Amino acid sequence: MSVVVVGSVALDSVETPAGKVEEALGGSALYFATAASFFAPVKVVAVVGSDFELGQIDFLRERGVDFDGLEVQEGKTFRWGGIYHENLNERTTVYTHLNVFEGFSPRIPESYTDAPFVFLANIHPELQSHVLDQMRSPRFVAMDTMNFWISGAPDDLRRTLRRVDMLIINDEEARQLSGQYTLARAAEAIQRMGPKSVVIKKGEHGALLFAEGRVFSAPAYPLARVVDPTGAGDTFAGGMMGYLARKGDTRFESLKSAVMVGTALASFCVEDFSLRRMREITLADVKERVLELHEITRFELDLP
Amino acid sequence: MSVVVVGSVALDSVETPAGKVEEALGGSALYFATAASFFAPVKVVAVVGSDFELGQIDFLRERGVDFDGLEVQEGKTFRWGGIYHENLNERTTVYTHLNVFEGFSPRIPESYTDAPFVFLANIHPELQSHVLDQMRSPRFVAMDTMNFWISGAPDDLRRTLRRVDMLIINDEEARQLSGQYTLARAAEAIQRMGPKSVVIKKGEHGALLFAEGRVFSAPAYPLARVVDPTGAGDTFAGGMMGYLARKGDTRFESLKSAVMVGTALASFCVEDFSLRRMREITLADVKERVLELHEITRFELDLP
Repeated sequence: MSVVVVGSVALDSVETPAGKVEEALGGSALYFATAASFFAPVKVVAVVGSDFELGQIDFLRERGVDFDGLEVQEGKTFRWGGIYHENLNERTTVYTHLNVFEGFSPRIPESYTDAPFVFLANIHPELQSHVLDQMRSPRFVAMDTMNFWISGAPDDLRRTLRRVDMLIINDEEARQLSGQYTLARAAEAIQRMGPKSVVIKKGEHGALLFAEGRVFSAPAYPLARVVDPTGAGDTFAGGMMGYLARKGDTRFESLKSAVMVGTALASFCVEDFSLRRMREITLADVKERVLELHEITRFELDLP
Repeated sequence: MSVVVVGSVALDSVETPAGKVEEALGGSALYFATAASFFAPVKVVAVVGSDFELGQIDFLRERGVDFDGLEVQEGKTFRWGGIYHENLNERTTVYTHLNVFEGFSPRIPESYTDAPFVFLANIHPELQSHVLDQMRSPRFVAMDTMNFWISGAPDDLRRTLRRVDMLIINDEEARQLSGQYTLARAAEAIQRMGPKSVVIKKGEHGALLFAEGRVFSAPAYPLARVVDPTGAGDTFAGGMMGYLARKGDTRFESLKSAVMVGTALASFCVEDFSLRRMREITLADVKERVLELHEITRFELDLP
């Protein structure tokens, strides 16, 4: 089954303690699509400027990513510049030039409207709703959001939340959105807002899945070296949704496996800048890493 | 097999968003002993002042905790006062009155010197070494330490580290001690300092175990409500060491189970102030929580 993703395409200039890149491919839609393409056909809805070299995304077309929903607008592509400091958890945004992304109004091509899986990356919640208005009857919709919309567009956000099956959000945002400190309570509160399933991303500490009244705790892969954390969250979501679309199933056991696939892909993502590492690896590498994640969390129950 | 613990006995006055207590039982040795006593005979080495009501620890004697090594000195017992703020991760120390603990020089009773398991709680590393000088030939020694000794007594700390089998330390301290940011690299660096095994505690994010060239990632129990985090680290260590002493084995599989038992006990510890919750629960409760932890981390491998 296919997945529609609506989000950004960006050219990122990133500096980390490990090095730097200039105007490298980025944006939520591209990270998501690259990760999801290991498992399922992906259909991208995004906008780029007339300066964007379309040949750059040919490798994704070869992987079955559909760009019929990629609008090319007169003007410049979204550009973001940032610096990650020593501990890689804090970053300074040097600039955010939204450019053509500023007026982005997602138009879903007719050929996309039957897609059973939809991911609404981090855009204005009103636009997220607008995407859903254009879809026929998706089987499973997941969304991301951020602090900016939680405080700046709370009513729109609440309306969108009522229409989705899953929220994938980081821990600080889960606390902010719910007003609850423990993540168990935060997830409960968010579930009451609409999404039956909540995934809380904790970066280097893994992720928690709450669904069907149950909890699943996923570890992070204990990497010795992180080069660039940019895009890890969208990569995680891409791995999850790609896996679910491939499986065609969203029961708890499948959601758990999906979280592990997302975790594995996110761990590859941060091993290099931009999409580089994900372009090098194969499905076999992803599977091997999931096996490693299984191994590092497995324990025998041997109690007196 | 028995476990010797060397650490503090304190009277803690703690305020958290959930309430407060005045001069409640605390200190690393008591948290450790309470947790370990679910599994093995514990022998305590610590000091209290002449103001300490010894009847307060009768419940531990009934659980097989040996206090022959508890020195009663003229003067006052160690007192600590602290306030935990909204997110429970930050705390303000209101006062630290070391009192008789200031001149603590651990003397190991003859009857303790053959104990095969030893835990050196967070005291000056020179005193930790001094304890080991008095033990015959313990099979397995674990220790804790803190930022204060890492920066204030680095040479003493290095000498003690060379003599122990396991360091149990929190994530920030692991980074400080090793100079490495990723926890995988931090653990490697610490292993080169002596301890073959390293356990890195991440509070609400669980713990990582590094030993025998392998890694184990333990989740935290996703509590809906945390009342008081005081003592969670020593409780974790007590659960681990008690389990290992009961098992009489320290191979990787046993270390993993020990980490899960420590995790379960620490999750009970923080459900109430002081030792209260641990006094209420039974071994069956601990086992049930370990089973729950197993359940929330278990996933089937189902990859295309």
